[in-house]
Amino acid sequence: MHDELHQLFDPDSSTFTYVLVDRAAAEAVLVDSVAQRFDRDVAMLRRLGVTLRYVVETHTHADHVTAAGRLREATGAVTAAPFKCGISRADVQLAHGDTLQFGHAEVLHAIHTPGHTSGSTSYLWRGNVLTGDTLLIEGCGRTDFQSGDAGSLYDSVHERLFTLPADTRVWPAHDYKGNTVSTIGHEKLHNPRLAGRDRASFIELMNNLQLPKPKMIDIAVPANRNLGLTHAA
Amino acid sequence: MHDELHQLFDPDSSTFTYVLVDRAAAEAVLVDSVAQRFDRDVAMLRRLGVTLRYVVETHTHADHVTAAGRLREATGAVTAAPFKCGISRADVQLAHGDTLQFGHAEVLHAIHTPGHTSGSTSYLWRGNVLTGDTLLIEGCGRTDFQSGDAGSLYDSVHERLFTLPADTRVWPAHDYKGNTVSTIGHEKLHNPRLAGRDRASFIELMNNLQLPKPKMIDIAVPANRNLGLTHAA
Repeated sequence: MHDELHQLFDPDSSTFTYVLVDRAAAEAVLVDSVAQRFDRDVAMLRRLGVTLRYVVETHTHADHVTAAGRLREATGAVTAAPFKCGISRADVQLAHGDTLQFGHAEVLHAIHTPGHTSGSTSYLWRGNVLTGDTLLIEGCGRTDFQSGDAGSLYDSVHERLFTLPADTRVWPAHDYKGNTVSTIGHEKLHNPRLAGRDRASFIELMNNLQLPKPKMIDIAVPANRNLGLTHAA
Repeated sequence: MHDELHQLFDPDSSTFTYVLVDRAAAEAVLVDSVAQRFDRDVAMLRRLGVTLRYVVETHTHADHVTAAGRLREATGAVTAAPFKCGISRADVQLAHGDTLQFGHAEVLHAIHTPGHTSGSTSYLWRGNVLTGDTLLIEGCGRTDFQSGDAGSLYDSVHERLFTLPADTRVWPAHDYKGNTVSTIGHEKLHNPRLAGRDRASFIELMNNLQLPKPKMIDIAVPANRNLGLTHAA
């Protein structure tokens, strides 16, 4: 058995999409798709010769629209989303501790990590954690829109991510500097927002970032609650 | 034991750099670096918490300058290059069938695949083949400069790559369309230049592409023979 974790990048929104593969069973799970990269992802699955079992979201994205609905239609995969995200059209609503199984014996573990949004969920698979917008490489997601909450993000990271083994690979939903991967050990020691900072100071930092409103939010959030589909169920 | 193959992309030259990791031993091998991404690669190795054992080239690149020399200086890694590439400054000269060992029991196998250049070499590791500019995703490297030879490339691909198991992942040195990975099985069936085409027809195709001379070639080739270093040994 092998790890086979593929990371794909959308340069327009700086979004990472992940494809996890059980090679022996030729089955895959795709996490955080991007509507404009639908063709890329379908072609990649075909080249890899794998069947897509699940299309999963880490949260309701505000900066791009998902391809989850179209991927379900094209491949027959089951869609899954965290239950607090309002993505009512997803086939599976995931709570903390829930698992998705694929391939012969692969298990994706849902870790509820609220803060960027109240539903934000990370996924653990074979020493890899897909952290969405909760924990970024030497950064973290913003907490000032949707259901964001800085204190919750601090608790999620410290209680549910920084408690993972130090060599766990961290795969975020975005990077804006050309980086691709980190580890829990590195982020615990060197994350400039989260390492060695107390909760009150983190909340003050996050509440004073004064970031502009995401350009896509009013389009992306309602679209993503519908899995990116423009037609009704 | 896990596969841990990291693919990094340089958008300026559309070059992929690969980092292969033995997680248990915390050791890595880096293949096909890019001078301008030296800082990115060093930072990534630090975040992963791994020691770099080898810096390897697939061939003498004509489109970008390697960071191999600087990576050796910064990390103490050993540099390795195919013996027919004229990279005389590399610590190890690799011939067909040679291996590089790292970590507890990891073995990188050198497969001489001439055609793009006479020294071009692919590397096999745990069901993954790093094909350099020999075999690209639904394409192949050009054969009209340096020591390129279309017939040799055809033979290399058919005799030494297409004979690998169908589910072997193909990781090329470049992609210009946003793709990241393929498989031997897919390329055997669907590569528009190489699938189902006889040798004579392939040679005619490749000899009539009429591609422009690479902009960087007169700078890149001599620099890469010196591992990208501007100072003498």
